[in-house]
Order: sequence, then C-alpha cells, then structure tokens
Amino acid sequence: METKPQKNEKMEKVRDIVEEIRIAMMTTVDEQGNLVSRPMAALQFDEDGNVWFFTNRKSPKVDQIEHVEQRVNVAFASVSDADYVSISGVATEVDDRAKINELWNPQAKAWFPKGKDDPDLTLLKVHTQMAEYWDSNDSTMVRLFQQASAVVTGTTPKMGENEKVYN
Amino acid sequence: METKPQKNEKMEKVRDIVEEIRIAMMTTVDEQGNLVSRPMAALQFDEDGNVWFFTNRKSPKVDQIEHVEQRVNVAFASVSDADYVSISGVATEVDDRAKINELWNPQAKAWFPKGKDDPDLTLLKVHTQMAEYWDSNDSTMVRLFQQASAVVTGTTPKMGENEKVYN
Repeated sequence: METKPQKNEKMEKVRDIVEEIRIAMMTTVDEQGNLVSRPMAALQFDEDGNVWFFTNRKSPKVDQIEHVEQRVNVAFASVSDADYVSISGVATEVDDRAKINELWNPQAKAWFPKGKDDPDLTLLKVHTQMAEYWDSNDSTMVRLFQQASAVVTGTTPKMGENEKVYN
Repeated sequence: METKPQKNEKMEKVRDIVEEIRIAMMTTVDEQGNLVSRPMAALQFDEDGNVWFFTNRKSPKVDQIEHVEQRVNVAFASVSDADYVSISGVATEVDDRAKINELWNPQAKAWFPKGKDDPDLTLLKVHTQMAEYWDSNDSTMVRLFQQASAVVTGTTPKMGENEKVYN
C-alpha cells in the first residue's frame, strides 16, 4: 500500500501501524441496525489521514453506507505486535478512474478478475474524523481528532491531540 | 481464554479462530454517533457462541452500550493467518461476582490492579446474533445466524447456516 507523510508525529505513528498491518476490519451498520465488519485491504493512507479501499459498487457495504449510515469504523489489529488502530470516519464511494488506475495492484485481481476496467470496481474513501492508537511500548492510548468541518467544507483539516491512559 | 463446544461444525470454526486470536476489536456507537473500536481480550466463548469480556463499569463503552446503542461488533483478525471473524451482537453488562471469580486471570491485573474484588470490575457479555468468518483455505465467507428471539426469551438459540462467496 501507499502512504503519505502525515501532519504530525502521532499521525505518523498511526500511519506506521496501518502500513504494517494493511488489512482492516471495516464496521458498517446494516439495514437491520446490526454492526457488521469484514476484512478489507487498505490501498492508500493519504496526506489527510484518510484511508482508501477498492470495493464492488454492488456490495452490501456500499448499500449500507449510502442508505443506512455513512459513518464507519476501520480497525487495524496485530495481536502479536500489540498494535491497534481505530479510525472513526465517514465513508463515501468515489468513482475516480484515474485514481483506480493509480492504486491498481495485481493482488486486487483476486477480487476483480476483470481487472481495473471492471465497471463494478470503485473506490471507498474513509474520511478520518478520529484516530486512536494503542502504543505497545507504554500501554497508553492516543486519540487524535480531525475537525469535522474539514470533510464538509474541504478546508485543510487540523489534527488535535489528546492523550489518555488506555482502559 | 476458555471456550466451550459449539452446536455445529461452522460455529466450531468460529470458536477456533476466536481462541487463536483472543484479542478482539470491539466497535460501539458513541454519543456523537461515531463508530469507535478498541482492543479487548476475550475471556470466554460460551456454548451459545457468546463472548465474555472484563470491563471497567465506568468506561465509555459501558456508557455507550447502556445509553446509546446496545448493538456492537466484535472482530477478530489475524492478517498473517488470513483468519477473520465478525460477530454482530447485543452487549450487556453482567455483574456476576461468581463468574468474575471463574474467569479471573493474572493478565487481567494489568487493567485491574486491585484484583478481582475491584468494585469497578464487571463483565461484558456479547450475545451473538450473527457470526461470519472468512476461511483462508477456500476464500469463502461463511455466515451464521442466531435467532434473535433467543436473546430475548432465553430459549435455546439455533444457528442457521448460509454460505456465500466472499466479496
């Protein structure tokens, strides 16, 4: 996966964990109100701390995001390294063929055998609103907030920092 | 952690993955409607496929479960083994001192230094409504439903089975 430099040291730490683990469990809300999750390979962690994925536009999660609840959780967990990241964000489908070309990789062929021109292939962007990570070194949890307005207005998001002890 | 024999082969498979990974990411809905997750060590996978955890009764997740949304997702992920489980369930706090005694273990002391008599220590039970797992051998996803009425009425839950190809 591709990752970009982040705005501060704590977001760099989030990026490092995401890059190391790569496969997230994405939780959405289904039509019955259940919280459901599934593994998804992250493609890019962009300069604003947003996470990009490929998805099939006909998959249940796209339906859930469009018709039930746009807010999702993206969790990266490595039990062996005791590294954990939780990203709370807003998911949107982005049908950007240039970006699909840019992020296309041979592994994606397992899910999209028709390749990058598959008309069902589209992008899912998770706009990060809050990121948290658990640091295996000192067992603290670090929480980072992104101004909600950034997603709505497209202004440069600022990340605030707020450390608290895990539990 | 402790696990019990399950009702059928597919739930045994879920149990095996849970037992192997042990640390879940539990997703809840917070006061602002965000989906937030955190790592939690599973203590027991009981005979009905429910998952038990220790928690601090003053933690945000207990507040969220009691005042915002009882439904949670419990995800177990091992990227290196390509094993993933998603459990959609209903969480309840269960203040059962006998069960706390039964499930107490030395590792829990890291979070509850006062030990098993800590008055803030309580149990979180996730009643499994739906479990899904991804089988690393044949890349299919297996979905298992539990009758919702079982949680409400206390009758013996039945697990239905429904296989579909992962996507």
